[in-house]
Amino acid sequence: MTNGIFYTRLAALEKEHEELLQQPNRIAGIGNGVFERYQNPVLTASHTPLNWRYDMDEETNPFLMERFGINAVFNAGAMKWNGKYIMVARVEGSDRKSFFAIAESDNGIDNFRFRDYPLYIPETTAPDTNIYDMRLVQHEDGWIYGIFCTERRDPSAPLSDQSAAIAQCGIVRTKDLVQWERLPDLKTNSPQQRNVVIHPEFIQGKYGFYTRPQDSFIEAGNGGGIGFGLSNTMERAEVLHEVIIDPKKYHTVYEMKNGIGPAPIKTHKGWLHMAHGVRNTAAGLRYVLYLFMTALDDVANVIYKPAGYFLAPEGAECIGDVSNVVFCNGWIADDDGTVFIYYASSDSRMHVATSSIERLVDYVMNTPQDGFRSAASVATITKLIDKNMDESLIKVDKK
Amino acid sequence: MTNGIFYTRLAALEKEHEELLQQPNRIAGIGNGVFERYQNPVLTASHTPLNWRYDMDEETNPFLMERFGINAVFNAGAMKWNGKYIMVARVEGSDRKSFFAIAESDNGIDNFRFRDYPLYIPETTAPDTNIYDMRLVQHEDGWIYGIFCTERRDPSAPLSDQSAAIAQCGIVRTKDLVQWERLPDLKTNSPQQRNVVIHPEFIQGKYGFYTRPQDSFIEAGNGGGIGFGLSNTMERAEVLHEVIIDPKKYHTVYEMKNGIGPAPIKTHKGWLHMAHGVRNTAAGLRYVLYLFMTALDDVANVIYKPAGYFLAPEGAECIGDVSNVVFCNGWIADDDGTVFIYYASSDSRMHVATSSIERLVDYVMNTPQDGFRSAASVATITKLIDKNMDESLIKVDKK
Repeated sequence: MTNGIFYTRLAALEKEHEELLQQPNRIAGIGNGVFERYQNPVLTASHTPLNWRYDMDEETNPFLMERFGINAVFNAGAMKWNGKYIMVARVEGSDRKSFFAIAESDNGIDNFRFRDYPLYIPETTAPDTNIYDMRLVQHEDGWIYGIFCTERRDPSAPLSDQSAAIAQCGIVRTKDLVQWERLPDLKTNSPQQRNVVIHPEFIQGKYGFYTRPQDSFIEAGNGGGIGFGLSNTMERAEVLHEVIIDPKKYHTVYEMKNGIGPAPIKTHKGWLHMAHGVRNTAAGLRYVLYLFMTALDDVANVIYKPAGYFLAPEGAECIGDVSNVVFCNGWIADDDGTVFIYYASSDSRMHVATSSIERLVDYVMNTPQDGFRSAASVATITKLIDKNMDESLIKVDKK
Repeated sequence: MTNGIFYTRLAALEKEHEELLQQPNRIAGIGNGVFERYQNPVLTASHTPLNWRYDMDEETNPFLMERFGINAVFNAGAMKWNGKYIMVARVEGSDRKSFFAIAESDNGIDNFRFRDYPLYIPETTAPDTNIYDMRLVQHEDGWIYGIFCTERRDPSAPLSDQSAAIAQCGIVRTKDLVQWERLPDLKTNSPQQRNVVIHPEFIQGKYGFYTRPQDSFIEAGNGGGIGFGLSNTMERAEVLHEVIIDPKKYHTVYEMKNGIGPAPIKTHKGWLHMAHGVRNTAAGLRYVLYLFMTALDDVANVIYKPAGYFLAPEGAECIGDVSNVVFCNGWIADDDGTVFIYYASSDSRMHVATSSIERLVDYVMNTPQDGFRSAASVATITKLIDKNMDESLIKVDKK
């Protein structure tokens, strides 16, 4: 009846899928010296196993049609685990609901493969409508925490409004990346919380939470800025007092809202933080990534902050479900100092960029700060040109 | 220490940069006969000199990392000057602040090179947060004016809102494109002004200002439409009375807002104006360019206006920081009648299109006007088809 469609399609699908998974990834272009981009995304919807999407039984699926559409794979947490580079990705079905799944690779830049099953995340007594954007944090208490966003419909919204949502911070923990224990959601004084992550070390014997208090689901509102506060426990996490450590600021790339990415990386000069900044444009919101450093003896004290963005959408990254977006909630500092930055583009796919602790520290310490005015930019650039003009004289002398 | 990274990168960067600058530009496609597009953008962020972006000293920048990121080069004013085709571009750093820099070319279509330094624009007593979109006007009073937008945070906005801005018209003048004298900002009765340009000739002994009065930063609001008014002086420019010469209009490409581009070009039939029109879509605002002509004896009187747009975003032009945008604030009418239209796409890069005075005059006079209804469009196109049916018969007869 199906004239062999089933097996013809199966062979073609398996060949294409395996070619995708084995595709080598190479550095793309000369770059700006701060990091390297790569030619291919590291994870896409097409990387999900075929047996997640297809009923492989010719009897019940003679046309070998997709039975569970995967829309996108993005916003992955990351860590190194047993010598493997791990991403815990946000996998989104064609129905918009997302869930978590682990993909792993031997080198961190290609050949990422999903494990057999997505993660089973237990619920609290208030069922999650949607869960997403997990940060993986190996805490010095011995647990690996998964800090993610849980979203539920706003119960106070009228029936006519089916978009109003409440976002809060969900928490799970594990010791093996297999069994996940759900803890109560984080309590704060903010009506909404997204982009929460914990500090990997104890602070005065307590757990440090980077937060992003906000008033409504899309708008950061009064609460805008990256906050920080302490909780006595993780079992009933509660941050009663949040201070804004990195506020929104007029005419910057984090003018409209901002939020922290993955947990910070410890360096000999300070804690390296990755964050995203958002501004409004005539074509919608634009999300870029920026870096800053906080003090080793005070993780809430910003000591270096370069002007502008670290990484912005480029080329094919600009287009997707939600265009003009890059987002990062996972990076890995390797033993040799290499840093793997896993970032998503346009809510659609995952990419990797590589740098090193040494270069990122140099970047945050030696890139000029924002002058907040056009005239300050001209002064900065003029100073740089003047120096370079002198350098060329020096070089001539040396010859 | 850095194992030769510095010089390896320097050689690669310099080679790539020089290849970009020397890339020839050719006409792309057959076009619509009204103008020709070109294969490559004429200015991009990558065209900015390497010594604006890199500290070229191996001692202080061993990894040769970018120290001042340039995000985009767009919305350039233009003029011919000492035989060269000049653009004064809006150069935007990765920190969003923009400034002006001159790039010049011998033929107007390729090999544009920036001068050694960006422009130093003095400030008024109210420092500019951001300056952009300069129109260059050679006025018959002997000065070259730079009419631009200056933006400052709205002082009445609450602290929680870091996006609210006030845009006003800044004015500089020069005789050599090197030394710029800042004059007081234009005064009008509108709370916001963008897209202002002056008429190149005196009108009743006064200076003519094309304006775009608007209520708020993004919305043109009540004041929408291209306005015109007179000022007695440029030293303390003030337009007390503005008339709308080209209003917003329902279901046109300038339905939501519009604004004048560069100063008009004088022809034997009238003044040729380039403007942009904006409509709203589900994916944000869409900016296109359109042309109209005003009378030689009354520059505020629109005598010809073709229906619809002259140029809209196409292909790669559609994508950028602010997608679906073309914008023009610079064109050059050459001695031989060639017109170089410098337009930016998606707030990211500059392109050139070429036409001629003769063709543009033909276009504005002979392209049908907007009928403002679908039925009118059908009537217009039917008339054209009928005529072509007759013409083909005549052609057959002639054979």
